[in-house]
Amino acid sequence: MRSWAERIVAGDARAVARAATAIENQTPEADPLMRELFPHTGRAMVLGVTGAPGAGKSTLVDQMARALRREKRTVGIIAVDPTSPFSGGAVLGDRIRMQAHHDDPGVFIRSMATRGWHGGIARASADIALLMDAAGRDVVLVETVGVGQDEVEVVRLADATVVVLVPGMGDDVQALKAGLMEIADVFLINKADQPGVERLQSELEAHLGLAHRPDGWTPPIVRTVAPEGTGIDEMLAAVRGYLDGKGSRSRGREMWVRRLREMLRERLLERLPEAELEAAAEAVAGRRRDPYSYVDEWLRKI
Amino acid sequence: MRSWAERIVAGDARAVARAATAIENQTPEADPLMRELFPHTGRAMVLGVTGAPGAGKSTLVDQMARALRREKRTVGIIAVDPTSPFSGGAVLGDRIRMQAHHDDPGVFIRSMATRGWHGGIARASADIALLMDAAGRDVVLVETVGVGQDEVEVVRLADATVVVLVPGMGDDVQALKAGLMEIADVFLINKADQPGVERLQSELEAHLGLAHRPDGWTPPIVRTVAPEGTGIDEMLAAVRGYLDGKGSRSRGREMWVRRLREMLRERLLERLPEAELEAAAEAVAGRRRDPYSYVDEWLRKI
Repeated sequence: MRSWAERIVAGDARAVARAATAIENQTPEADPLMRELFPHTGRAMVLGVTGAPGAGKSTLVDQMARALRREKRTVGIIAVDPTSPFSGGAVLGDRIRMQAHHDDPGVFIRSMATRGWHGGIARASADIALLMDAAGRDVVLVETVGVGQDEVEVVRLADATVVVLVPGMGDDVQALKAGLMEIADVFLINKADQPGVERLQSELEAHLGLAHRPDGWTPPIVRTVAPEGTGIDEMLAAVRGYLDGKGSRSRGREMWVRRLREMLRERLLERLPEAELEAAAEAVAGRRRDPYSYVDEWLRKI
Repeated sequence: MRSWAERIVAGDARAVARAATAIENQTPEADPLMRELFPHTGRAMVLGVTGAPGAGKSTLVDQMARALRREKRTVGIIAVDPTSPFSGGAVLGDRIRMQAHHDDPGVFIRSMATRGWHGGIARASADIALLMDAAGRDVVLVETVGVGQDEVEVVRLADATVVVLVPGMGDDVQALKAGLMEIADVFLINKADQPGVERLQSELEAHLGLAHRPDGWTPPIVRTVAPEGTGIDEMLAAVRGYLDGKGSRSRGREMWVRRLREMLRERLLERLPEAELEAAAEAVAGRRRDPYSYVDEWLRKI
């Protein structure tokens, strides 16, 4: 009988799904499993897709999956959804997607809710990307609404990041975009059949003329109309152009600095007894002691 | 001559501004200063205001500040803006606001960019709220776009949270709202002069009928038209109703559990030498070793 890890490496969808659940719920099995899988990773292209709400990311990701399937590449999709931190419930869109790729074992889909307060979403989605990589997926598409730090961190763990903009959005949404401008390896103007495309293109070009990346890369701007599939091939070509030009090695190292830091942070916090934390919180809330000296004391103890 | 902390407690705006900068930049002076200020805190009402982009939060917060000033209360405003993680630049809206309250020393305003990757924005904004509390502000309004976990965490550190919704927004924005539904102590339907108000009210009521909070509180729904100031007094009354009913003690303790955890996490990470982290990242990126065993090893060492 084959082990869990062996079944994953062989591409068994059920074994992959069970592993993704273990990673999300941080069960004790997850770490040993990931250790076993890690040597089988490093082959997949992990592509982050992010943008403001309403930019049409889901349709884009579906079209990208279709285009990749036409090239006979296997695909994993990780959709990170900003649902309730309390219920962490399932996502309606997921069921719709499941149906679209229902008959195709070449597409794995996993939705993740951004539940929990300990910032674990970036770690979990990165581990699930590794899992899909170990399971032999050629390309892993990670989709997220790029608005919070955690969401941005999710796509920063990808090999390349596509930032999706749409013409004619309001000022407040433009402000949101600001946080995304500098993480884009490729810009997409989606809904490029709508008014305002030329203006958005000029704005983007003006921005790119001012912002010089340390690595010398100037992100190309690609126009798409997602429901019709227009521009999808051009977008994939732009991403490959970026990855070919950069090589993945140095990017990989930089990414692992961030990931290791995040993993360590999460594990360290598990070590402080909850009762001690609660007693301290009680004292601080009552102003009997200040929080800064508690933290100092804990640091000396650990 | 008075010390820095003494000048802050006396309400000196320049001393407060300098302290806010020290907190944001995590300079070595920040911690001892906060320790000195902490016994002077615990009097201000800290009110979080959050909602989807375009919900009119800035105008609302300005109107709340005006209403509070009419009651002769002093106000602090902390605006958390999702700007570039790299440049962390100043925020245009801030200048506009500054002008609106320019002649009034009873209003302190501080904008914070959500720069940096270590999740420090919640800690920093909470410390700045404490700073304004120590400086004698009666009410501190913390405004943020409630979309990422960090942004939500920012308002979770407040005494009460107002979630701003507007009628007639699209499905994708509705999904964003989902993350906010359960952190609301008071719901606001802003732009209540626009079509779709009744429908949004019914949807909210349906949601509230299903979701029962552990503390038994049912968040009231208040309608506002921010530019005209309509509903602002009702909203403040609703917030006070919540705080009167709950008492702040138990809420304070719960909040401090989260804050202490966050503070500890941040400090712990500073202890891992960067060179060691980078060497490990290099080995992991080259697949010479897996990240999980590195983290285990560090945990044993610390």
